Amino acid sequence: MKRIRLIATGGTIACMPTEHGLAPGLDAHALLDYAGTSAQNVECVDLFNMDSSNIQPEEWCKIAEKVLKSSWDYDGIVITHGTDTMAYTASMLSFMLRGIGVPVVLTGSQYPITYPDSDGRKNLQNALLAARELPGGVYICFGNAIIKGCRAVKTRTTSLDAFESINYPYVGMVANGRCYSLAMPEKKQELSFSDALDPRVALIKLVPGTSPALLESLISCDVRGVVVEAFGLGGMHNFRRDHTESIRKLIAAGIPVVLTSQCLYEASTPDVYEVSEPLRNAGVISARDMTTEAAVTKLMWVLGQTDDPEQIRALMRQNLCGEIME
Amino acid sequence: MKRIRLIATGGTIACMPTEHGLAPGLDAHALLDYAGTSAQNVECVDLFNMDSSNIQPEEWCKIAEKVLKSSWDYDGIVITHGTDTMAYTASMLSFMLRGIGVPVVLTGSQYPITYPDSDGRKNLQNALLAARELPGGVYICFGNAIIKGCRAVKTRTTSLDAFESINYPYVGMVANGRCYSLAMPEKKQELSFSDALDPRVALIKLVPGTSPALLESLISCDVRGVVVEAFGLGGMHNFRRDHTESIRKLIAAGIPVVLTSQCLYEASTPDVYEVSEPLRNAGVISARDMTTEAAVTKLMWVLGQTDDPEQIRALMRQNLCGEIME
Repeated sequence: MKRIRLIATGGTIACMPTEHGLAPGLDAHALLDYAGTSAQNVECVDLFNMDSSNIQPEEWCKIAEKVLKSSWDYDGIVITHGTDTMAYTASMLSFMLRGIGVPVVLTGSQYPITYPDSDGRKNLQNALLAARELPGGVYICFGNAIIKGCRAVKTRTTSLDAFESINYPYVGMVANGRCYSLAMPEKKQELSFSDALDPRVALIKLVPGTSPALLESLISCDVRGVVVEAFGLGGMHNFRRDHTESIRKLIAAGIPVVLTSQCLYEASTPDVYEVSEPLRNAGVISARDMTTEAAVTKLMWVLGQTDDPEQIRALMRQNLCGEIME
Repeated sequence: MKRIRLIATGGTIACMPTEHGLAPGLDAHALLDYAGTSAQNVECVDLFNMDSSNIQPEEWCKIAEKVLKSSWDYDGIVITHGTDTMAYTASMLSFMLRGIGVPVVLTGSQYPITYPDSDGRKNLQNALLAARELPGGVYICFGNAIIKGCRAVKTRTTSLDAFESINYPYVGMVANGRCYSLAMPEKKQELSFSDALDPRVALIKLVPGTSPALLESLISCDVRGVVVEAFGLGGMHNFRRDHTESIRKLIAAGIPVVLTSQCLYEASTPDVYEVSEPLRNAGVISARDMTTEAAVTKLMWVLGQTDDPEQIRALMRQNLCGEIME
């Protein structure tokens, strides 16, 4: 029987009531006890016990290192994690652990596993099952759906189907205690581990009236890369409040700018409308069909790999782990 | 027969190919000609001809004024508008034109009305129909759906069903040349017009690793209000990179902070998790089930009505036009 490692990091699934509100408290063994009978041949490790709103790039590196080492001795890995930033963690692990030979399955729950109607027990059971069945790669298994890690977005604050697969098919599902997987092994089979990253990436979501001063202030904020959630396919103001000029200043200051859409679904491109032409000319990098979560974590990761503007541009455009359509 | 005013503002529906990409070119009459036979008793006016990525608070005021004056002489109003910021315009008009007695229906298209398979003709026909049938209020009519203006979000960059109704039922649909409406007249029947607003509102969408310096830099960016798209129900970092302290500084500087979720669907609240307790204590205002578009435009509008922090808080919490659950 396959050997699974369960890595606990906290999150709602591990939460207990406190006088200040819900806070993570249960360890991996306790979670496994709640999940019950399907938890055979599972070895537990507690990495930390955090609300995922506090999980930051430093925690990503700790998780990636633990996953890497676990992959040497186990056939599959399950990570329990808060839902709030799980899509960011799954995206970043997809870049850090490219070509990993074992499945790495993140899960959690919308309600603490101790609650009578919690989704935590079923989600953990499903993730353990998926970790025995899926090919190597990073996934989120949540509410019966199996989603490619770099394509997941948390779209619902409270419902049990909290995550969606964005601009990419669901790679599997778990139903009636069976895992149905369409996940393909990653093209690049060799493990290419790197946890180098630069966390100094800012995300700016535009609204009508956004001041160019806000974009330009990033230059003095010790920012090394910017992702802009623009309008529709990738529009920004270019008169009265001229965002294009601000983008030019950022790029001139050596700060790469990645353009994505604030629309949840479907790809962005600055190639269609006249209003976007100055952005193309200024040298923005299109995120195309990447999720914002993937675009931000990828830019952090790419900035950890190279300082060279052309290499940054080339890597951002390249499909590294299924995060962008080829 | 009811008299309808068609106000054209540009957008993809009016676009023509140029050597720099698509740019608005057609006027209201031309749009009406394309829409064809259903366009009886419609009077046209061209307000401007802009890509909606360039529509800003100044344009909202011009549109609101034109709608107000049109409402004196017409039974219904249709506004053609680019899709990229249509949800922001519809939200802001909902606040500016509270209690308007005639239907104000925004529409547009994903493809120029001149294209053979454009959605523009059907969308404009449907909007004209809806403007004869709906009760007073602001709506988006797009791809057969009728959505309350302050509940609409553009969720798709290219598909024809570009808009969704968020945390609120669809108020109607148009099918087979008939309008099925469940829209209720607004509770407050009397028109209460105000186009006073303050555009100096910044939207910050957090990512793991967001620097507190980014939040604090807003104080020196001439910002008068901030909306934060936090994690999940409303979580932010409170250690290593302490966002709570930054929020406290913003509020101490007289800048109200509205907390919403980066999850598209379902409400946010800082009342559940321990990680959010410091935010509650710092005095953030919860956007609850408002869309980000409604939260941002409402804050701009509220800041135009009053300087008083307690009144700002009270107005943000109050349901003004269906934008927030009572």
